[in-house]
Amino acid sequence: MGNCCDRPKDTYIRVSLPAVCFVWQIAMVVLFGVFIRYNEESDAHWPEYKKKQNITSDAENDFYYRYPSFQDVHVMIFVGFGFLMTFLKRYSFGGVGFNFLIAAFGLQWALLMQGWFHSLDYNTGKIYIGIENLINADFCCAGCLIAYGALLGKVSPVQLLVVTLFGITLFAVEEYIILNLLHCRDAGGSMVIHAFGGYYGLAISWVLYRQNLNQSKHLQGSVYHSDVFAMIGTLFLWMFWPSFNSAIANHGDGQHRAAINTYVALASSVLTAVAVSSLSHRTGKLDMVHIQNATLAGGVAMGASAEFMITPYGALIVGFCCGIISTFGFVVVTPFLERKLKLQDTCGIHNLHAVPGMLGGFISAIVAAAATESVYSKEGLVSTLGLEGKFANRSPGTQGGYQAAGTCVAIAFGLVGGAIVGFILKIPIWGDPADDNCFDDEVYWEESKARIMPLGTY
Amino acid sequence: MGNCCDRPKDTYIRVSLPAVCFVWQIAMVVLFGVFIRYNEESDAHWPEYKKKQNITSDAENDFYYRYPSFQDVHVMIFVGFGFLMTFLKRYSFGGVGFNFLIAAFGLQWALLMQGWFHSLDYNTGKIYIGIENLINADFCCAGCLIAYGALLGKVSPVQLLVVTLFGITLFAVEEYIILNLLHCRDAGGSMVIHAFGGYYGLAISWVLYRQNLNQSKHLQGSVYHSDVFAMIGTLFLWMFWPSFNSAIANHGDGQHRAAINTYVALASSVLTAVAVSSLSHRTGKLDMVHIQNATLAGGVAMGASAEFMITPYGALIVGFCCGIISTFGFVVVTPFLERKLKLQDTCGIHNLHAVPGMLGGFISAIVAAAATESVYSKEGLVSTLGLEGKFANRSPGTQGGYQAAGTCVAIAFGLVGGAIVGFILKIPIWGDPADDNCFDDEVYWEESKARIMPLGTY
Amino acid sequence: MGNCCDRPKDTYIRVSLPAVCFVWQIAMVVLFGVFIRYNEESDAHWPEYKKKQNITSDAENDFYYRYPSFQDVHVMIFVGFGFLMTFLKRYSFGGVGFNFLIAAFGLQWALLMQGWFHSLDYNTGKIYIGIENLINADFCCAGCLIAYGALLGKVSPVQLLVVTLFGITLFAVEEYIILNLLHCRDAGGSMVIHAFGGYYGLAISWVLYRQNLNQSKHLQGSVYHSDVFAMIGTLFLWMFWPSFNSAIANHGDGQHRAAINTYVALASSVLTAVAVSSLSHRTGKLDMVHIQNATLAGGVAMGASAEFMITPYGALIVGFCCGIISTFGFVVVTPFLERKLKLQDTCGIHNLHAVPGMLGGFISAIVAAAATESVYSKEGLVSTLGLEGKFANRSPGTQGGYQAAGTCVAIAFGLVGGAIVGFILKIPIWGDPADDNCFDDEVYWEESKARIMPLGTY
Repeated sequence: MGNCCDRPKDTYIRVSLPAVCFVWQIAMVVLFGVFIRYNEESDAHWPEYKKKQNITSDAENDFYYRYPSFQDVHVMIFVGFGFLMTFLKRYSFGGVGFNFLIAAFGLQWALLMQGWFHSLDYNTGKIYIGIENLINADFCCAGCLIAYGALLGKVSPVQLLVVTLFGITLFAVEEYIILNLLHCRDAGGSMVIHAFGGYYGLAISWVLYRQNLNQSKHLQGSVYHSDVFAMIGTLFLWMFWPSFNSAIANHGDGQHRAAINTYVALASSVLTAVAVSSLSHRTGKLDMVHIQNATLAGGVAMGASAEFMITPYGALIVGFCCGIISTFGFVVVTPFLERKLKLQDTCGIHNLHAVPGMLGGFISAIVAAAATESVYSKEGLVSTLGLEGKFANRSPGTQGGYQAAGTCVAIAFGLVGGAIVGFILKIPIWGDPADDNCFDDEVYWEESKARIMPLGTY
Repeated sequence: MGNCCDRPKDTYIRVSLPAVCFVWQIAMVVLFGVFIRYNEESDAHWPEYKKKQNITSDAENDFYYRYPSFQDVHVMIFVGFGFLMTFLKRYSFGGVGFNFLIAAFGLQWALLMQGWFHSLDYNTGKIYIGIENLINADFCCAGCLIAYGALLGKVSPVQLLVVTLFGITLFAVEEYIILNLLHCRDAGGSMVIHAFGGYYGLAISWVLYRQNLNQSKHLQGSVYHSDVFAMIGTLFLWMFWPSFNSAIANHGDGQHRAAINTYVALASSVLTAVAVSSLSHRTGKLDMVHIQNATLAGGVAMGASAEFMITPYGALIVGFCCGIISTFGFVVVTPFLERKLKLQDTCGIHNLHAVPGMLGGFISAIVAAAATESVYSKEGLVSTLGLEGKFANRSPGTQGGYQAAGTCVAIAFGLVGGAIVGFILKIPIWGDPADDNCFDDEVYWEESKARIMPLGTY
Repeated sequence: MGNCCDRPKDTYIRVSLPAVCFVWQIAMVVLFGVFIRYNEESDAHWPEYKKKQNITSDAENDFYYRYPSFQDVHVMIFVGFGFLMTFLKRYSFGGVGFNFLIAAFGLQWALLMQGWFHSLDYNTGKIYIGIENLINADFCCAGCLIAYGALLGKVSPVQLLVVTLFGITLFAVEEYIILNLLHCRDAGGSMVIHAFGGYYGLAISWVLYRQNLNQSKHLQGSVYHSDVFAMIGTLFLWMFWPSFNSAIANHGDGQHRAAINTYVALASSVLTAVAVSSLSHRTGKLDMVHIQNATLAGGVAMGASAEFMITPYGALIVGFCCGIISTFGFVVVTPFLERKLKLQDTCGIHNLHAVPGMLGGFISAIVAAAATESVYSKEGLVSTLGLEGKFANRSPGTQGGYQAAGTCVAIAFGLVGGAIVGFILKIPIWGDPADDNCFDDEVYWEESKARIMPLGTY
């Protein structure tokens, strides 16, 4: 494992990492104490509330509508994203471990940030949380984990916590603008999660461009078993994506339809990703990079229109196109971006999240604009497009325009926010690795050692 | 990794694989466009439908009864089967990757085939799909994935897509005959999935017998970590098998009982598989092959009678016997089949699926024949055995006879269909590997390489 | 792999292991036949029962309230605990495989033992089981699997079955005393599962102290990929812990609140575990041991008070403190225990289960004592603290006292029971490995070999 004393001094994080973790965790405790309370469905007053609202069954508690989907989303965040990033031959600890750290911090900060914007009761000054808040907090983390994909192996855990702090903050703001002010529909987060997260990560990575990254070239590949580990991530993302896109959809047909649409779109992506992957090799061999990533593009792109009456056939077409575009991105666009734009994107989030997310936003614009009462029914149109309250007069066509506008807002937030955060990360106090030390777990992880008898007393 | 230019020309799949993927995926898009629509529970007209049917709660949408089980089944198909097939030292990519490809294509074709047989509305000519169709489509794929177990490492991805196309078609037909015409009960698919899939795969493998497979003998074993990867598959199959057998059972006690029966049968299989595995070794050591496979036999065999009042004690006995039979199969029968019948069964599906599936069918015949009104209650007997409509006059004894007949139909379909498909696969256009190239990912998968900087521009 | 003929004779388990498996499994069949039946929700009489009880919807079957959580718990038991114990470089088969064996046997015995204590109908002499019994059986196994963590690599599978037989028995008794006689609340089992299981394992390990364990020192570490495998276990435990703590909580707000509390407590543990891990290394590097284990401490400690109105902020504090204490335990206490107390704790269960479980019990005492009607509502207080029936007159303060007493009972049962079982295991008939053969799969597992062509007939 080499002599650890040769290591450059600036990856010393024994002060900064514990300090950031402790300070931020204490801040969370204080802020939760001031702001966060159980909502009426998770509070012990529920039996009273039930009576008051004439609810006859505990099965009407939102917990039972959403908990199975929540757990699936939870698996996607921690195992899905985490293992997808274990593919590097010597950065599996960092892939899955820092993913864990980002998400565990991010979800706490997200509960607060999203709470202030969406669940704050102005009378009491409290945020009342339930299962839907937990799902949204996980979603919020997804944005930062996507960004981590572009930075994998090139940053310190302290930098990642900074990326997360700002990422969650930006996310909550853009989400508020897109979902509340523009009143877009985005059940699966094509725009608010994927387009935002993708461009946020790309902008940071672009600012942090490393001229001499080829010095750690020998560590940038995968080995046989690290690619199998990454498939764990891929498959859990792939399998549970219907839950991701349906987790916060409307009860009843909304969740049902979102799951079906995502299921078929993903299936379609697999076939076109395999086809283009095979086409891109001299004798038709497949590339694990494409199978691990491009197969998921259909799920990303279905996000914003998952709840819509896109028809199973429409969902298949979305998956079909995005599987092709995403694989093409890995074959052609990522190398191009790196050579021409000086953009180093370790996991290829440009192809899996940024572009399919953007496309998903625009697809939702088209599908929303094409909505009619005959297809949705009167009531269905109102509830699916959310044309209620002060948006009751909005036509489907107008809604389509707002969907497109929302996508642009997400991208703008990602690019501008990412550029700013990138410059913050350039301050030389965060303990990031040298160019010849990237993609190496040895920098931030202790070597494996015996678990018992560590004091060598025998 | 050797010089890739030495490879025999006939594994060139750069034309055939993309062509098959694109053509079939486009066909899916067209056929979905013509035939597939949302059913009343996933359509935006659900609020209207709810009112018309006097349904008071969204919780009555079938989605909430079945979605958690669906996701468990989904995990079994993609992670369960996929990782169970990663045990070979150099065929883990093919194991999990081609499993992914088969299932992603298969489920689309299954939605159509099963839809035409089971969910077609003759007035509109449309197939209306909901969550139960997704579960059934996953089930349908399971049959083909079982067959893949016998072929693992010896066929090309193009051949696998052919196996899947015909497999799903045959499955839908035999399922229609068994479940609709013979009116058998088979909640967990002992006969329609496991017996059919098992014999289908064995018949194909028998036709494709390779005289000189010993030329790739050095690749047929596992390595330490590939066996650990396979345990991921085993455990997810084992844990979620109660969901598999209860996913499409009747609401209420049906699903509840199916889960309990499967849970205890599986537990029992583990102990007898361990016992026989230990007995079969000179000093009592355990064999990972048995632990990875035979522990699941109880779940397979409980499939057809999962919903019946077999009693927890009956389920334990089923698991007890099948754990023994399955392990015995791995120790004695598989080597025998190969030597005497020229049958090369890479994963031993004969012992895990074919035989326990067949036994499961016959067990269900006995249990059905023994059903009485005092045990089931009048209403319970009707709903559990499905003795309604034009089958209202069928006695439990007659139903038992039909269960046995259904098992035979499944086996016959598997053997005949598999033999025919095997001969189709012998046409030398599918790019299958040479005998000395089997069990080797290098044939169809690109070597691992750096993900960024692929153009070598530094 | 060395020459297997050199192995000491006493690891010969070809008689004892199959004998124990067969005898115990047959006993299970007989006892299930005598005692176990379906309860009213899983019996075919459910339609009748539903009418009699005026239940209008199948969704009221407890199956639908608890099955998703059950499956999550099931994953924790088999994949969570199983993979957490794969970290050793050459004991991954034993880690995941014996975990599988223990749990599969344990859950059957638990259904009986817990049934006799909790679900026995004195009129019919039968135990009526449903989904809640399955969850409790899984919980019961967790106690034994925790104990296995201390013994990992040092005992034979036969010994483990003995540990399980006695462990489940002791568990059922202490659980009966704590939950029924003392009437403690312990939804997530801080005391009955973690404190008991932890001290049970430690006491056994203390009795089985091996003077010369350093002879197998070279096998006590992890390798790179075995640590990644262990992260699979960690993450599935971490993600599904909210289901563990809410699985048998009260319907409605109880389950909802338990999930929220556990979710935030776990998030908090991650940050403080990372902080202390970094602090404990010279340059701030993280240790995989801490990330794999201490991050879970918050879930353990939240168990007993998961259902209480501890507030999200209170849950964060619990996670905060336990993350620190647990990591500190791995850094300082485990080495100390081994040097001074002759206690070899392979997985460090002292730090992950014993201490956080004990703390969880005492925390629940404080939280229960502080409960007021204004916070819980009158009805909520009664249902959350279980102050019904003959316990209706108990005040929250008294309940707090009983919670503390229950914790002490759990610890006492663990220590005394473990010591006795330890002495039983010292009888030299169980085939345990020699000191220089510990932590080595080769002792109980056959070497990997080709799966087809095993008879070498080519």
